Amino acid sequence: MSYKTDIEIAREANKKPIMDIGAKLGISSDDLLPYGHDKAKVSQQFINSVQSKEDGKLILVTAINPTPAGEGKTTTTVGLGDGLNRIGKNAMICIREASLGPNFGMKGGAAGGGYAQVVPMEEMNLHFTGDFHAITSAHSLLSAMIDNHIYWGNECEIDVRRVAWRRVVDMNDRALRQINASLGGVANGFPRETGFDITVASEVMAILCLANDLKDLEKRLGDIIVAYRRDKTPVYCRDIKAEGAMTVLLKDAMQPNLVQTLENNPAFVHGGPFANIAHGCNSVIATKTALKVADYVVTEAGFGADLGAEKFMNIKCRKAGIAPSVVVVVATVRAMKMNGGVAKADLGAENVDAVKAGCANLGRHIENVKSFGVPVVVAINHFVTDTDAEVDAVKSYVEEHGSEAILSRHWELGSEGSEALAKRVAEIADADAANFAPIYPDDMSLFEKIETVAKRIYRADEVLADMKIRNQLREWEDAGYGHLPVCMAKTQYSFTTDPTQRGAPTGHSVPVREVRLSAGAGFIVVVCGEIMTMPGLPRKPAAESICLNDDGQIEGLF
Amino acid sequence: MSYKTDIEIAREANKKPIMDIGAKLGISSDDLLPYGHDKAKVSQQFINSVQSKEDGKLILVTAINPTPAGEGKTTTTVGLGDGLNRIGKNAMICIREASLGPNFGMKGGAAGGGYAQVVPMEEMNLHFTGDFHAITSAHSLLSAMIDNHIYWGNECEIDVRRVAWRRVVDMNDRALRQINASLGGVANGFPRETGFDITVASEVMAILCLANDLKDLEKRLGDIIVAYRRDKTPVYCRDIKAEGAMTVLLKDAMQPNLVQTLENNPAFVHGGPFANIAHGCNSVIATKTALKVADYVVTEAGFGADLGAEKFMNIKCRKAGIAPSVVVVVATVRAMKMNGGVAKADLGAENVDAVKAGCANLGRHIENVKSFGVPVVVAINHFVTDTDAEVDAVKSYVEEHGSEAILSRHWELGSEGSEALAKRVAEIADADAANFAPIYPDDMSLFEKIETVAKRIYRADEVLADMKIRNQLREWEDAGYGHLPVCMAKTQYSFTTDPTQRGAPTGHSVPVREVRLSAGAGFIVVVCGEIMTMPGLPRKPAAESICLNDDGQIEGLF
Repeated sequence: MSYKTDIEIAREANKKPIMDIGAKLGISSDDLLPYGHDKAKVSQQFINSVQSKEDGKLILVTAINPTPAGEGKTTTTVGLGDGLNRIGKNAMICIREASLGPNFGMKGGAAGGGYAQVVPMEEMNLHFTGDFHAITSAHSLLSAMIDNHIYWGNECEIDVRRVAWRRVVDMNDRALRQINASLGGVANGFPRETGFDITVASEVMAILCLANDLKDLEKRLGDIIVAYRRDKTPVYCRDIKAEGAMTVLLKDAMQPNLVQTLENNPAFVHGGPFANIAHGCNSVIATKTALKVADYVVTEAGFGADLGAEKFMNIKCRKAGIAPSVVVVVATVRAMKMNGGVAKADLGAENVDAVKAGCANLGRHIENVKSFGVPVVVAINHFVTDTDAEVDAVKSYVEEHGSEAILSRHWELGSEGSEALAKRVAEIADADAANFAPIYPDDMSLFEKIETVAKRIYRADEVLADMKIRNQLREWEDAGYGHLPVCMAKTQYSFTTDPTQRGAPTGHSVPVREVRLSAGAGFIVVVCGEIMTMPGLPRKPAAESICLNDDGQIEGLF
Repeated sequence: MSYKTDIEIAREANKKPIMDIGAKLGISSDDLLPYGHDKAKVSQQFINSVQSKEDGKLILVTAINPTPAGEGKTTTTVGLGDGLNRIGKNAMICIREASLGPNFGMKGGAAGGGYAQVVPMEEMNLHFTGDFHAITSAHSLLSAMIDNHIYWGNECEIDVRRVAWRRVVDMNDRALRQINASLGGVANGFPRETGFDITVASEVMAILCLANDLKDLEKRLGDIIVAYRRDKTPVYCRDIKAEGAMTVLLKDAMQPNLVQTLENNPAFVHGGPFANIAHGCNSVIATKTALKVADYVVTEAGFGADLGAEKFMNIKCRKAGIAPSVVVVVATVRAMKMNGGVAKADLGAENVDAVKAGCANLGRHIENVKSFGVPVVVAINHFVTDTDAEVDAVKSYVEEHGSEAILSRHWELGSEGSEALAKRVAEIADADAANFAPIYPDDMSLFEKIETVAKRIYRADEVLADMKIRNQLREWEDAGYGHLPVCMAKTQYSFTTDPTQRGAPTGHSVPVREVRLSAGAGFIVVVCGEIMTMPGLPRKPAAESICLNDDGQIEGLF
């Protein structure tokens, strides 16, 4: 039996006009700014008008540690959203936007897969509604204004050796990671070292995704620390007077983007911060707006639950004042096998023992999520090669560990395949059993916050940090930043900082290499290991094969 | 008497839904991709469907050499378009898009002024429909792929000292003019010198504006020379295999953008190449499509007629196979006075003698334009402070020189003020009196082409170019580029290469400092004097005062 590719299925989608999708949510066409006939931005007027409505239920989809076998977190998010609509619920989904640059390195990431996708998939992997370009522009304006400030007399007395604000571009361009700028003489400024990150790593991206509205956005942009003086006091974005113009550039980018699933159900796709040096969730404004217009909102968080769900709850929910009613942990039989020691090439063969061994990874994520006071359901995202015995092994394991696992076949069947999952998730959400709380309070010391995540989520014995890092954290506490949450940047492939340690390792240490203050976004980034903020292109970039065919269709992007 | 500002007038505009504007041109809503309710892109399907239709009349609006007094070339283009509609003609306008970056340095350029404007003005000065962001992305992809090619083994044997392709960003960022890239060790590539230009200076911009369709676009992108080998043979974009993916990134950007004037008449606003190192006209695809859907198409060219009209005719018309039926040269009494030696501060006082003296500049532009075989009308763009005697002085001068000048008050009155101009322009166009030809043939040598423009348009005695430049031109001729037109990059403020020489100077020389081959765009850039391809921000950038007010309106952009 052969299956259609994601792009084949997406191209056959029977899309409805986006105005019709908006109407389902009670959004009039005046309140929808169209981008083509299948994408639209929701107006701020509309968002203001629904503020007094009651919130729907929030459902978080997270996953085990990612493996090369794939988990299908977004696929399950879409499938669950369609499933809830199928059983008569007023549900919508909220997911992140894709970064353009990486698609020209490796083949692009679909928004879901099989019969659980969001469309228009090609545009979502290219310019979409221009949000990331707006973020790049706003970031670039601040960059230019900082060097311009230095050029025209440096009134703020910026130490050119201590400019913290780098530049960004939405492209995988390793040549720009480290540069010397302002060369060529007096007219070009004061030479200094700097470099480029990819746009999704911009603090502007994190801010846009955490801001409640345009006023809050402008305030947070002003709070960005762009440089330090020789006496080490910070120079803020507002000292450079850039935050107003940056807000103007981000005015439209702040509005959530409405698209649809293959089954014509509504989806907000908005914002996409890195999941390591930032919090990896779609925008707060999209999630909060969705909660006003839908009774059930299915959203997801980046990477596995150790990073994604932890940040979703400790950073996004804390700051936005929202809470999940139920959390779905996505697992696949194949990924369980890989966690149980099977190589990718051998995944085709049934191996119940390996599945059982790999379940330790899943079990720990379940425990962790429960520790936030929220009920957990495991969704087994079905692959057509999974055997019944393997699926049963996962189910039994989960039941033995006090939870439940439901097989879901949305990839193959769309909402018909996710009905059982949707029913159970809705039941749990409706039962209001959640008693959500972040796992550390605002007033805990920064180092203790790091320890709390490392010990309770990663199950490490200790956090290793030298005196310089501990002193830096204390300085920030003295400067009034002690109440901030911590944003852990570690490998997504393991509970430890060693990507090869699958399963549920114990007895490890978490070495903190560096800490950074994202004063505008409002968190302390804790870097544990090598973090790449500007990817490179591979030897044979996908771009070499991307082109328009004679029918004007895009080839090679997927 | 006090007048409303451009932005006040623009905000009061009674815009019609863009779908209604499209309907006037016979474009159905299926063939219009909306961007909000007041902007739309015209589908390629529609463009294909009108190819067999007869062309309308093309009207070029150009101007005297710009002075700080302002000429109102775009204002007159818009006013004339509205005037033609007022007298019952099916007319539309075609103008360039604005670059985002410079608006954060100096206050933004409106699209026209007074009651002759195109709207939505704010968005046209910000992200608009994302075309320039797409061009930046396509350019950046090629940049990244070149360094990536070198990084992974440099199969094409690029000489890293001879990479011709620089990077671009749509921001005034002098710190990026000259950089050392790929620093930081083995993982970041081979260190080399490079730098950034502003996006409008990208060859991708020039190519997009000269390409007939997506196939032609892809071919031209492939033709770009990105670097040279140690043996000085060129490495093309197609050797790097980037042109297909670049075309995919530019797919939507290639489609013309439809907006409207204050009087709800249709306007294409599409493309915006630099007018010095490129040809400074809106896209060929917009102009050619407009000619299929309107009976009269009013378009403009950058800078004064010595640069703008010359390139419009020698480059754009030659390549696109189009020809103007009539050319309107815009002059103002104030600009005549400045050409006659009056300082900007003294423009308020009547000074008929200075007007007469300054008319020499206008007279030469009239002669020049006529030498292309096209009829000329002078539009005196009325300022409310102009006296009758001053206006009469211009009219008399123009009549004595075998042409006619018409006072036009569109700035103050909209189409009511431009009716007379519109009537006369339509009459001339309808008379089919034009016998257009470029002023040099394809098969003339490159150096003779430069001499032709310098002597016949600039009225220089000679072209100064050292042996290196003459040899370079001969090498390109030998390599098969001898048929290309020349794209002159000189100051826009004077017929000479000295910006202070106003009026109609003679006896000067044109020194050629450098020649560059834009093999994708298809012209030889001839640099005469200092050409800045990356502007800087001023001491107090406009950005410092730009913000959203409490009503969500943009302050400080205009």
